[in-house]
Amino acid sequence: MKITLGEIANLVGGVVEGDSALIITGANAIEEAESGDICFVRAKKHWPKLATTQASAVIAQKKPENCDLPLLLVGNPDLAFGRVLQLMEQTQRQHPEGLHPQAVIAPQAIIGANVAIDAFVRISDHAEIGDNTIIYAGAFIGAHAKIGPGSIIYPNAVVREHCRLGARCVVHAGATIGSDGFGFAPLDGQWIKIPQVGTVEIGDDVEIGANTAIDRATCGVTRIGTGTKIDNLVQVGHNVQIGVHCVIAGMVGIAGSAVIGNNVRVGAYTGIAGHIEIGDGASVGARSGVASSIPPGSTVSGFPAKDHQVERRVLVSQGKIPDLIKRVRQLERQLAQKDE
Amino acid sequence: MKITLGEIANLVGGVVEGDSALIITGANAIEEAESGDICFVRAKKHWPKLATTQASAVIAQKKPENCDLPLLLVGNPDLAFGRVLQLMEQTQRQHPEGLHPQAVIAPQAIIGANVAIDAFVRISDHAEIGDNTIIYAGAFIGAHAKIGPGSIIYPNAVVREHCRLGARCVVHAGATIGSDGFGFAPLDGQWIKIPQVGTVEIGDDVEIGANTAIDRATCGVTRIGTGTKIDNLVQVGHNVQIGVHCVIAGMVGIAGSAVIGNNVRVGAYTGIAGHIEIGDGASVGARSGVASSIPPGSTVSGFPAKDHQVERRVLVSQGKIPDLIKRVRQLERQLAQKDE
Amino acid sequence: MKITLGEIANLVGGVVEGDSALIITGANAIEEAESGDICFVRAKKHWPKLATTQASAVIAQKKPENCDLPLLLVGNPDLAFGRVLQLMEQTQRQHPEGLHPQAVIAPQAIIGANVAIDAFVRISDHAEIGDNTIIYAGAFIGAHAKIGPGSIIYPNAVVREHCRLGARCVVHAGATIGSDGFGFAPLDGQWIKIPQVGTVEIGDDVEIGANTAIDRATCGVTRIGTGTKIDNLVQVGHNVQIGVHCVIAGMVGIAGSAVIGNNVRVGAYTGIAGHIEIGDGASVGARSGVASSIPPGSTVSGFPAKDHQVERRVLVSQGKIPDLIKRVRQLERQLAQKDE
Repeated sequence: MKITLGEIANLVGGVVEGDSALIITGANAIEEAESGDICFVRAKKHWPKLATTQASAVIAQKKPENCDLPLLLVGNPDLAFGRVLQLMEQTQRQHPEGLHPQAVIAPQAIIGANVAIDAFVRISDHAEIGDNTIIYAGAFIGAHAKIGPGSIIYPNAVVREHCRLGARCVVHAGATIGSDGFGFAPLDGQWIKIPQVGTVEIGDDVEIGANTAIDRATCGVTRIGTGTKIDNLVQVGHNVQIGVHCVIAGMVGIAGSAVIGNNVRVGAYTGIAGHIEIGDGASVGARSGVASSIPPGSTVSGFPAKDHQVERRVLVSQGKIPDLIKRVRQLERQLAQKDE
Repeated sequence: MKITLGEIANLVGGVVEGDSALIITGANAIEEAESGDICFVRAKKHWPKLATTQASAVIAQKKPENCDLPLLLVGNPDLAFGRVLQLMEQTQRQHPEGLHPQAVIAPQAIIGANVAIDAFVRISDHAEIGDNTIIYAGAFIGAHAKIGPGSIIYPNAVVREHCRLGARCVVHAGATIGSDGFGFAPLDGQWIKIPQVGTVEIGDDVEIGANTAIDRATCGVTRIGTGTKIDNLVQVGHNVQIGVHCVIAGMVGIAGSAVIGNNVRVGAYTGIAGHIEIGDGASVGARSGVASSIPPGSTVSGFPAKDHQVERRVLVSQGKIPDLIKRVRQLERQLAQKDE
Repeated sequence: MKITLGEIANLVGGVVEGDSALIITGANAIEEAESGDICFVRAKKHWPKLATTQASAVIAQKKPENCDLPLLLVGNPDLAFGRVLQLMEQTQRQHPEGLHPQAVIAPQAIIGANVAIDAFVRISDHAEIGDNTIIYAGAFIGAHAKIGPGSIIYPNAVVREHCRLGARCVVHAGATIGSDGFGFAPLDGQWIKIPQVGTVEIGDDVEIGANTAIDRATCGVTRIGTGTKIDNLVQVGHNVQIGVHCVIAGMVGIAGSAVIGNNVRVGAYTGIAGHIEIGDGASVGARSGVASSIPPGSTVSGFPAKDHQVERRVLVSQGKIPDLIKRVRQLERQLAQKDE
């Protein structure tokens, strides 16, 4: 990357204080930036770090005190810095290009314009790949599956038959979309498989983390709404419905037929029971176990998940039980003495 | 799928009430069924949903009240519905067929009759694939590994050298069977690798979930018994012994050398410590941490896992600690006043 | 394997008591060993098992009582047994050899001497593979990635662009190194992707478990120090820094920018919050949630993680709450009676 501070300012709609002609060659965190890098400060508490940073320029919302570095002032430093990272990414990330001769694409598959398919990708019968989509080596696209335009499928990801992804989706390495749901009926001490004939439908701008597994529905559809972001090693069970613009952190498990509303946030390691409902805008803390439905807009944590403030009091109080036991014993003794 | 209600009745051993010649083209849940679909009701509480279902026919154990739809009466509606789903699956799932020219099969591998091996599958030296087994693209079968007849290995699954699977096993996408166990000996502040030279042996009719990892034994065998079903993202440590017909839910972790009996159920997110034993028929609730052995037939939950009823009382009681602290303080005050 | 007991003694620096010419053909645990095998006993409490073992010889620190088997006496039986397993591994494990014609290696990639690359491996532009490294089928090495000499990359593992691994690393099947970190900025109810342009740098002798996911840094480096061993299904977030010679058990999750010191041990299922620090030599128990920084050398467990002894008392005390509630109620009654 090689761009002037003034050009960055134009791109992100900001104002330069200092040398607009300064050449920026990279971007990094304030502590790790080197000469040529631009960094950013989000909050006042990080200002002292500017005294020792090696960065050549700083993105900030307002001018930090005691800072002589060239500044780029913008309304939202996070987003402006993200835009600079995007420039860096464009210059440094080399996606595969074109259709590699050692990919195997079924004759009936439909491949859009300007698609990149690397070696050892298997595109099955009647699969459909949208324009400008990039598929890395070793990925598998099943029969009748559909990947929307502008998507990126990273190496060794699997999208099984009949599953559908919208536009601009990102599926990270090793993720599995459309594996059979975990459905078995007991019979005479054995487990009989209930075939899983449904599909997975994923909206636009969805990101699926590395080694995450999303099961197809028993029948019907496992659904993930537009704009939802799912981290690594997450399990989404059969027939789960997830709304739009949710954020699901790493190692979350969502059991079959759970319904997650829109704009819901779920912290890492949280388990959500099957067949329950989490309302729009709810926020579930990390390491929670959600055993029953949660109303819209609520903030819960713990196991079973309860109001976050209540849970915090419970957590703090747990440390006091050993002392409490002593105090109760003491009270019992005192009272016994009185009775003597 | 295109089959009459009468033909389905013959297949599942049921009785039709209504038009036996009715054409069924699909199957779906009661709420999502469309015209042409058959649905099922398991319990009386779901009868009201029949008033608004779009399904064309219903599988039930006995005639629901106020239901005009053609009925298929059977002893076990779950299993009968599963049988219909199997028919749907047979008509809609297109497994790969034949040996793809871009698979690489070692000359000394033994491939059974009617085996399907898709592109980019690597079958290593002396591996043995049973009759009618289907191996999807990108799967890896290591040297001397053996896959029983009638199995399905989904895309990018890995079965490492010397591991053995029985008949009719299903290994989902991205699953790893036979990775090295996590064995290291401390020496002068470093960790020396203990080579893991054992194997994994899996019985018949076992299902291994997507992105699950099953480690080979240090020496000897990591064993999973016939009929056991393992969900996604599960970790099975080296030398673990799992009995027959168990159900292990998603994200369970089983540490090295643990012994799980027959017909055991383990809920999601549960961790089982190494070298302990879980007795036949035991049931372990979700999110439990099993730190010591569990007798046969017991139902446990919590961390450390204890009798489920006791754990429920403990869970409920935790919410009462903040109040309890106040009450004890109040008692202390009252008693102090008395002493004045 | 076919080696005499005397030859093993020479290799591990031990002393034979009994027939040095005895032929050893395998090694196994004391309970599972068969004729021809050597086993080992670590502690006195395992001596009784020697009465019924089928093993032909025993490795021990000192002569067990009532044991007629040929003995190999050494200072560290664990390590000596590990050395025997290494011999077994060398004779039985068949790694791929040479460059398979159906691998796709970019022309600008640099491949060291004596490298093995199996079928369907994709080595991208400018990637660099050190001498004697073995790459199994289906693995992916991204552009500008570097794998040190003597490493083993198991099937379908993914090392994305610009990531670097040191010498003698082992990456297990299905592991992902260098996936995008989970970074999104909120804007008008949507989540805008922050490009993840950093890398992952891994030291020498590191082991990465099956289906584990290690995210690249947003900018800068996600770092894993020399000698650190990571188990299966672990999540390492962007910009995490892990020191040297740590042991991270299965299903651990480490959130973004956490700093783990040297020689730290983390038990299974433990979650570590972002931006906190775990000091050198600390030990974190299984199923813990570490919400704030932990001083060097401490032993913690629970959620939130606290001193392990304190946590144990809290755990034990939790079971006593239902009884405590009864006792407080009883005290209240008694006191009320007194007041009458």
